[in-house]
Amino acid sequence: MKTETTNYHFNSGITLESGESLSAFDLVVETYGELNADKSNAILVCHAFSGSHNAAGESDTDGKLGWWDEIVGPNKAIDTNKFFVVSPNNLGSCFGSTGPTSICPKTNEIYGKDFPDISVLDWVNSQEMLLNKLGISSWACVLGGSLGGMQALQWAITYPDKIKRAGVIAAAAKASSQNIALNEVSRESIRKDINFYEGDYLKKGAFPKSGLKAARMLAHITYLSEDNMNKRFGRRMQDADSKVDESVDYQVENYLQYKGQKFSETFDANTYILMTKAMDGFDPAKDFNNKLEEALKNVKAKLLIIGFKTDWLFPPERGKEIQLAAMQSEISSSYLELDGKQGHDSFLFKSKRYEDNIKAFLSS
Amino acid sequence: MKTETTNYHFNSGITLESGESLSAFDLVVETYGELNADKSNAILVCHAFSGSHNAAGESDTDGKLGWWDEIVGPNKAIDTNKFFVVSPNNLGSCFGSTGPTSICPKTNEIYGKDFPDISVLDWVNSQEMLLNKLGISSWACVLGGSLGGMQALQWAITYPDKIKRAGVIAAAAKASSQNIALNEVSRESIRKDINFYEGDYLKKGAFPKSGLKAARMLAHITYLSEDNMNKRFGRRMQDADSKVDESVDYQVENYLQYKGQKFSETFDANTYILMTKAMDGFDPAKDFNNKLEEALKNVKAKLLIIGFKTDWLFPPERGKEIQLAAMQSEISSSYLELDGKQGHDSFLFKSKRYEDNIKAFLSS
Repeated sequence: MKTETTNYHFNSGITLESGESLSAFDLVVETYGELNADKSNAILVCHAFSGSHNAAGESDTDGKLGWWDEIVGPNKAIDTNKFFVVSPNNLGSCFGSTGPTSICPKTNEIYGKDFPDISVLDWVNSQEMLLNKLGISSWACVLGGSLGGMQALQWAITYPDKIKRAGVIAAAAKASSQNIALNEVSRESIRKDINFYEGDYLKKGAFPKSGLKAARMLAHITYLSEDNMNKRFGRRMQDADSKVDESVDYQVENYLQYKGQKFSETFDANTYILMTKAMDGFDPAKDFNNKLEEALKNVKAKLLIIGFKTDWLFPPERGKEIQLAAMQSEISSSYLELDGKQGHDSFLFKSKRYEDNIKAFLSS
Repeated sequence: MKTETTNYHFNSGITLESGESLSAFDLVVETYGELNADKSNAILVCHAFSGSHNAAGESDTDGKLGWWDEIVGPNKAIDTNKFFVVSPNNLGSCFGSTGPTSICPKTNEIYGKDFPDISVLDWVNSQEMLLNKLGISSWACVLGGSLGGMQALQWAITYPDKIKRAGVIAAAAKASSQNIALNEVSRESIRKDINFYEGDYLKKGAFPKSGLKAARMLAHITYLSEDNMNKRFGRRMQDADSKVDESVDYQVENYLQYKGQKFSETFDANTYILMTKAMDGFDPAKDFNNKLEEALKNVKAKLLIIGFKTDWLFPPERGKEIQLAAMQSEISSSYLELDGKQGHDSFLFKSKRYEDNIKAFLSS
């Protein structure tokens, strides 16, 4: 699989939904496969909140497999023998694109807490600039899971002529009150970490790892299903000699402690707050009298909406709401509900029906 | 309503399930109504994890209504004109009974983190000592919601001759992997608070309020239903002049911040850890080959099991599992599923079917 990692610099800058602007910004982008002669085979994959541009294959930096490696690759559901897959790290993230850990060109200091608020629309606008830079007129498909699915939906609404298909997977047309509440608890843990320094930790050489760890532990629970957790961990006790912390009694505690700790060593705290706020704020219907069907009425892309029965973060009902609005606005849309063994995270894992449906959608 | 608050001292002490013991302990107990001549009308109500002995009427200390005031009182579902209702603060709690904030008689210092682990069985054993002290041979009923319901179930199993009825409401026969995981995130927030000092905060004159606040914010989400939160708060923004914190955007954030803050000013951190560990550890089937039906086979009490459809902490399926085991062990048990508007917290609020069923059960 031909893989390239490129840093694209946009010196024209971008005006954000908040009204603030960045005078210039970078997007680091990984691509898989090759663009065909008529440039009709480009697919944009959008990552979820803590993802990166490394969607497939081994990462150059840590050797880990990309977040969608089960789905993107030669002969996989998103077949890189056929498609040119474009995977940017989102604006505001911490894996190479301009974000809170970058240097602000005006002040020559790290942005930190002063990085402006980012929205899903801002990501889509920056990705449209990327599309232009690549000299492509439209995406064959934009798709992603969770916050990635929200970007796909926003793409279909905002740039109807530049997207042929949108895959909205394990997502919602807006965050629920409970989604916001859970994100707020995670943010609270980060903000109250003694090493957060009101967001100025990098200037102090400090890292709010404890807060990030607790935040991730909570978020991780929302990515799994209760049934899946019961099967994987149940009420089994952790062996004394493999406890990551003395306080651990149960295997599920050990697992969360481990996952939280690892995450806290690689992710940025201001980015966590920024990204979750973008998720909370997503609500494309807000500019259309709070009617999603009105937001969708100019959509030209075909939609494929996929929900997973075991997902309690964005349960299937959220996908059905999008499908219902799509039917009301008489656009082409189909809804697929899959069992999914891994709760919200099911979008990351291959299964026959999941793969078959993505393949059929991309060749439709 | 005749109300009395009494501090009972048990100078014989108690040996705990862990093998550790307390050489003496106190239980503070509130009672409502009057014991009848043949002592057949005593009902034990068991509080949930953060509750107190103040189940009904106004608290002497803060004037707040008791946690089950909608259910316990004259002519209410648990009618104090008919019944003598006994409501102890649990051993290990922080509202007057012996717990981590008490003075250890051996060391003359605050127990703090050295207070021994407590289990649901320990509570039931201490309540049985209370029963003896009151000179009563058996409870007409033991009941409670959530962790209170777990105590009622344990009572039926451990003291079959001393309980006529057990009301197991919004509870489960054991904590799920997800229950444990959510509790562990709360504990992690508390333990990593800079003011926790590995549990020795009281000796340092410090209070881990930030950790307790985040813990309660998370727990509070689990007490409400997604639907209820959407109706109460939706995605509405908080007015700028009534924000409890500058970081707040949404009403649901403001609500959680407020609730978390209030809780952190009244609850004890070591107690939080102790109580959640008791909940995680509850699993009466563990001594019966992991078969609940075996644990129930000597039960003589009638059971009433109530689940609420909107409860996602202990969903109705958990109640049905108890009912199924009760049927297999051929004991008298009935299961009632109620809509419940308030998620897990529904057990605290009166509704006609809920009241009617409790009344009928108590007079059966």
